Amino acid sequence: MDAAFAELGEKGYGGLSIEAVALRSGVAKTTVYRRWPTRDELVADALDSRSDRYEPIPETGSLRGDLAEFCEGVRAKLTSNHGKAMLKSLVAAVDQSPEIVETVQRFWRERRDVGGYLVERWIRRGVLRPETDADLLVEVLLAPIYLRVLLPGGPLSGDVLEGFIDLALHGVLEDVVPGVTITDQSSATASDTARVDRMGRANTT
Amino acid sequence: MDAAFAELGEKGYGGLSIEAVALRSGVAKTTVYRRWPTRDELVADALDSRSDRYEPIPETGSLRGDLAEFCEGVRAKLTSNHGKAMLKSLVAAVDQSPEIVETVQRFWRERRDVGGYLVERWIRRGVLRPETDADLLVEVLLAPIYLRVLLPGGPLSGDVLEGFIDLALHGVLEDVVPGVTITDQSSATASDTARVDRMGRANTT
Repeated sequence: MDAAFAELGEKGYGGLSIEAVALRSGVAKTTVYRRWPTRDELVADALDSRSDRYEPIPETGSLRGDLAEFCEGVRAKLTSNHGKAMLKSLVAAVDQSPEIVETVQRFWRERRDVGGYLVERWIRRGVLRPETDADLLVEVLLAPIYLRVLLPGGPLSGDVLEGFIDLALHGVLEDVVPGVTITDQSSATASDTARVDRMGRANTT
Repeated sequence: MDAAFAELGEKGYGGLSIEAVALRSGVAKTTVYRRWPTRDELVADALDSRSDRYEPIPETGSLRGDLAEFCEGVRAKLTSNHGKAMLKSLVAAVDQSPEIVETVQRFWRERRDVGGYLVERWIRRGVLRPETDADLLVEVLLAPIYLRVLLPGGPLSGDVLEGFIDLALHGVLEDVVPGVTITDQSSATASDTARVDRMGRANTT
């Protein structure tokens, strides 16, 4: 697996050969073929062995802290040389075989499972809305991290991660004084207007 | 450009050769070299010619409508064969040369400019908070679309896009009755608790 992963990191999906993996790991080609009859099966296993499914679930005592730790863990992995190589290989390989599609789907499922656990915890504690969709939340928080690694658009600092978390927690809609309804067509939906003014909100604290 | 793009779509960054582009476009190799001395310059120009900078800015009369149209436009482009090939080529090519890094950065800037325009409009109309960070909002809405194209994790239906928009508009925090403060440590931050209860909110409409 280490040899396959190293080859994948250096040469990408297109350049990986079972011969090179055998050479690098010091075994006969036939030994590799016995275990992984096709290149796709080897790649799928190698990528899978690096997925982070055994990540501990954050337990910081606050929702924001849990999400920050979750995002930071993903950021740290993806920005490492290994993590970046894995992600790029996965993207390059995903259309190549059903085994790899299955790996990608397992990968998403595992991420969502951790997110689902966190969301359930914080719904139970009354901090998240009961109808919170864990899959959406995980995707909105993690996709920008993945995409910034794949298409560098700026640094991935702690501040940036905090910004994503803030947005996902609070949304971006202006709050509105209770009883006051914006009646012009600029209002997004009726429910958008039914929120307490930021000032009013400050008064209640 | 069309020939370069077609080659890129079929063979990816690694497989693109100036010879093949010349052959496909029916001109002499030297003609291509005169205009694009290196392969990287050709790739950067080809990718750039496909970026969507001349997208009209949505004007539906509602914030939600504008965002839905914005996201739908990106989804439609990225899920087309051309769009998907462009995105994958860009991801494969991004580490290869400064020209391509510059292309990616211009690409992000253009996306953010459209988002910035929309955000400014809806801040002016009192629907978005004045401090809304347009870059973050654009990234949180679009990154999941990009990532689902790159690492298929599920369908990209209108419902899914609506889900991302809802989350970004409203956030996921439970609203709290004014004056009632959650005092146990499960509260995320003080400001998280200073929101109106969903029931109370319903009463004000």
